[in-house]
Amino acid sequence: MSWQGRLLDRSLRLVVKPRLRRVVAIPEARRAFRRAALAFRPTPFTRNLLRPGGLHWIGSGPAQAGRVILYFHGGGYIVGSPQTHEAMLARLALLSRVEVCAPAYRLAPETPFPGAFDDALRAWDHLRTLGYARQDIVIGGDSAGGGLALALLAELCQSGQAPAGAFAFSPWTDLALTGPSLLDNSEADAVLPGERIEELRDHYLQGQDPRDPRGSPLHAAFPDCPPVLLQCSDSEILRDDSLRMAAHLKTEGGAVTLEIEPALPHVWHLFDGWLPEARQSLSRVASFAQASFEIVRR
Amino acid sequence: MSWQGRLLDRSLRLVVKPRLRRVVAIPEARRAFRRAALAFRPTPFTRNLLRPGGLHWIGSGPAQAGRVILYFHGGGYIVGSPQTHEAMLARLALLSRVEVCAPAYRLAPETPFPGAFDDALRAWDHLRTLGYARQDIVIGGDSAGGGLALALLAELCQSGQAPAGAFAFSPWTDLALTGPSLLDNSEADAVLPGERIEELRDHYLQGQDPRDPRGSPLHAAFPDCPPVLLQCSDSEILRDDSLRMAAHLKTEGGAVTLEIEPALPHVWHLFDGWLPEARQSLSRVASFAQASFEIVRR
Repeated sequence: MSWQGRLLDRSLRLVVKPRLRRVVAIPEARRAFRRAALAFRPTPFTRNLLRPGGLHWIGSGPAQAGRVILYFHGGGYIVGSPQTHEAMLARLALLSRVEVCAPAYRLAPETPFPGAFDDALRAWDHLRTLGYARQDIVIGGDSAGGGLALALLAELCQSGQAPAGAFAFSPWTDLALTGPSLLDNSEADAVLPGERIEELRDHYLQGQDPRDPRGSPLHAAFPDCPPVLLQCSDSEILRDDSLRMAAHLKTEGGAVTLEIEPALPHVWHLFDGWLPEARQSLSRVASFAQASFEIVRR
Repeated sequence: MSWQGRLLDRSLRLVVKPRLRRVVAIPEARRAFRRAALAFRPTPFTRNLLRPGGLHWIGSGPAQAGRVILYFHGGGYIVGSPQTHEAMLARLALLSRVEVCAPAYRLAPETPFPGAFDDALRAWDHLRTLGYARQDIVIGGDSAGGGLALALLAELCQSGQAPAGAFAFSPWTDLALTGPSLLDNSEADAVLPGERIEELRDHYLQGQDPRDPRGSPLHAAFPDCPPVLLQCSDSEILRDDSLRMAAHLKTEGGAVTLEIEPALPHVWHLFDGWLPEARQSLSRVASFAQASFEIVRR
C-alpha cells in the first residue's frame, strides 16, 4: 500500500470510525458527511485557454463582470505555468468572486531577463485593450511571479496607471540576493535549497543588473502606490524579500499589509484543499481584492 | 500549525527539497514541477443540476456523445448526495471520456424501502426517455449505492433491457446481514463500525423483507447479465457482500471481475487526488466502462 494509504487508514480509524460509532441523529450524520465530503472536494472551475494574448482564464462560481485578478505563477522564472497553479487560482476565483487571468509568460533560460517582465506588461496592456479599467484589475503572484507582479506594479505606478491593488505570496523581490534569511533560513526552509538560488537567478539574469527594478522591485519606485498585501512564512529563505519589500513600500507611502505565518512552506497556498492555512490565507487575499476594488471605486 | 501543515513540512523536507538540491537539467525540473503540480490538481469539471428528473450531471474533458454512466452515490441509504461524490465522479468522467449522471435519490428514514430503488428505476427510465440506448449506459455505485446499482441491474436483466455493464465499489448487497466479514472485519475496517450496521439497515427497511432483491441483489436473478466489475477491500466489513455477489453472478452466468485490494478503506475511490490506489481503481473502471460499450456494439 502507498504511504498515503497507510496515513489515510490511521486518520480514518482515529477520526471517522469513532464518530460513526457515536452519531445518533440522522440530520447530524448528514451534516457531518456533507462537511467531510466538501472539505476535500476540489473547486469546480472552468478555464479558457483560447482567449487571445496567451492569457489563461480561470473562473469558478459567479464572477463580477468587468473585474479581474491578473496573476503571475511562480517557479523561479524557469518552471511552472498557469496550469500548474490552476487549482489554487480556481479557489481564489471562487473566494474573490472575480475571474483570474494568468499569463503564460516566457521562461528562462530560453528567454532571459527582462522577457518575463515584458510579457507581464504586455498582459496588462492586453487586459486594458480588452476594456478592463485599471481600477478593476488587482495584480498578484507567487515567488518569482510575486516579484514579477510587484515589478509590474512599480512600472504601472510610475506611468500613472496603478491597478486597484496588488498581492504576493512569498515573493522573490531581490535578485541581488542580499536578504539575510537566504542564509539564516537555509535549514528551516522546507522546500527551497538556499545554496542553489544564485544559479537560479543566473538562469534568468544571464549577467544583467541584479538591481534592475524590472527584476528586483525591492529597488523600484512606487509613486501613488495602491494597497499591497504580502504573505510569507517566517521559516523560508525568501522571508526577508517580503519583510524588506513591505518596509520599502511603506517608505514609498504605500498602504502595505504584511502577514507572516509561522513555519509554513514557501507558497503554502498551493496546498489548498489539504492545508487549512492555505484556505485561510486565500480567503484574506479574496477580501483584500474585494476591498481594493471598492476603495478605488470611492 | 495544523497537523496537515506539520505533515506537509515533513513530506516536503523529505521529498521535495532533496530533489531541488540535485536537479541539474531544466527540462527535468520543468517535468518534475509539472508532474507534482498536476498530481494534486483536482479534475476540472462542469456540472449541471438543472436537467430534468432530479439528475445531477457531471462532465470533465471531452465526452463521447450519447453515452453515459448512471451512478448511485453511497451513504447507507441515509446520507450523501451526488454533490458529496462529485470530485470522484469528475475524475471518473475524465478517465472514461463519458458523462456521469448521478440521481439524487430519496433517502431513509423519510423515504423507506423501496423508495431508493424506485428512484433508481425512475432515473433509468428517464435516461431512456432522453434517448440513451440501453447499450450506451453503464450503471455503477458505491456502498449502498453499489447495492442499488446491482438491484437495478437485476431488474433490468429480468425485464430484458440490460445495460452495457455495471460496476460497484464496496457494494452493500445483503440487507439480511449474513456475511461473515461483518463480524470478522469489525476491527480491521478503518471506517465502518460493524455494530451499527443493523440499525442503519432498519432505518431503510423499517421492518420490510431483508431478502427482497430490490434491497439485496445478492438474492436476485440476473438473466443475460452483462459484464460486471466489483471492487472491494479485504479488510472491510462489507468484503463478503462483494465476494458472495461475485460468486452469485458467476452462478447466474455473468462475466464478473472481482478486484480485492489489501487493507484499503471502504470506498477508497473517494480519496482520488491524494491516494494513488484510488486513481488506479478508477482507471480500471474507466477501461471497463469503455470495453463494455464496445462489447455491446459488436
